[in-house]
Amino acid sequence: MREKNIHPVFEQVVQKERKEKFLQQKAHTLWLTGLSGSGKTTLGIAIEQELLKKGFLTQILDGDNIRSGINNNLKFTRKARTENIRRISEVTKLFLDCGIITINCFISPNEKIRSLAKDIIGRENFIEIHVNASLETCEKRDVKGLYKKARLGLISNFTGISSPFEPPKNPEITVNTGELTVENSVKQVLDYVLPKIKYI
Amino acid sequence: MREKNIHPVFEQVVQKERKEKFLQQKAHTLWLTGLSGSGKTTLGIAIEQELLKKGFLTQILDGDNIRSGINNNLKFTRKARTENIRRISEVTKLFLDCGIITINCFISPNEKIRSLAKDIIGRENFIEIHVNASLETCEKRDVKGLYKKARLGLISNFTGISSPFEPPKNPEITVNTGELTVENSVKQVLDYVLPKIKYI
Repeated sequence: MREKNIHPVFEQVVQKERKEKFLQQKAHTLWLTGLSGSGKTTLGIAIEQELLKKGFLTQILDGDNIRSGINNNLKFTRKARTENIRRISEVTKLFLDCGIITINCFISPNEKIRSLAKDIIGRENFIEIHVNASLETCEKRDVKGLYKKARLGLISNFTGISSPFEPPKNPEITVNTGELTVENSVKQVLDYVLPKIKYI
Repeated sequence: MREKNIHPVFEQVVQKERKEKFLQQKAHTLWLTGLSGSGKTTLGIAIEQELLKKGFLTQILDGDNIRSGINNNLKFTRKARTENIRRISEVTKLFLDCGIITINCFISPNEKIRSLAKDIIGRENFIEIHVNASLETCEKRDVKGLYKKARLGLISNFTGISSPFEPPKNPEITVNTGELTVENSVKQVLDYVLPKIKYI
């Protein structure tokens, strides 16, 4: 019989430590929160490229691979949004247990929802990054044409337009993507993150 | 704008290939199906230990980390069991995209449910392993005391007792855990699996 049934938490920790040693990295979650169009996924992908080059294994979790997969049966009601973040956080935890650094790109518009994520993932692993661009900038970019639709009333509860975005109160990092280049944004994030994910 | 929005499937494949190269392994799913008490998790853990020693990164997915996490809001109705396997399969897919070999230990009692898993995960990545021990052997072991409860009628729809187990028709491997030692069971699985997961 596996010991896991007796000391499940203890065994998970051992598992995680073994995998971290194997990968020579410390698993953390880089949680990118911000308005639609603020550049979360662009920044997330650029961070991943840079970390891969430096020998770190990462996994991006974002709307593209989550909403089309595990959460493809969730709508956008308040209840479904909470379930969306709960499942994302549980998936994240599995990746952390495997020693992997996750890069989570989700609007996650308020403290309540980000707090749920932190509770599940573990605050000690959670690096909160505010991808900060003004509503004007995001709306001007409108890469997916969503702001236009939201202004026309075709999308309800659209963050920034018909639903509020609460900026995080004490994010570890605030990246002003409206002003910085992607390159400089990545640098700002990595300056903070690298010491935390390095295996010692 | 990321290319992913234009060619999502293509980019996922590229991502997977990059991660596989990084890890020097080919990502596959070892899906262990069998009765409760047949030794799926015991075998799964032993396979993981052996693969880690050989330099392969794996992730075990089983009742312990799935039912207590992402699927902790699912009951055991027919509908919930299907949703259980669907979510497990979507999580598995995310790990495969990250180049990781998953070891999935779930009773998954019938063709319909295993077929759903294969469809989501992709048949080319799916190695079906029947962990085969007779009902008598499993019931005699009864490591979790579940058979006793099922015989007393305290658990409904218990596979093997009040609900059928359909053995897979064409599993890649059948491991007779009622006869083999764990060591020999692992050897049998690895003889088949190693050529598939080796990076060339």
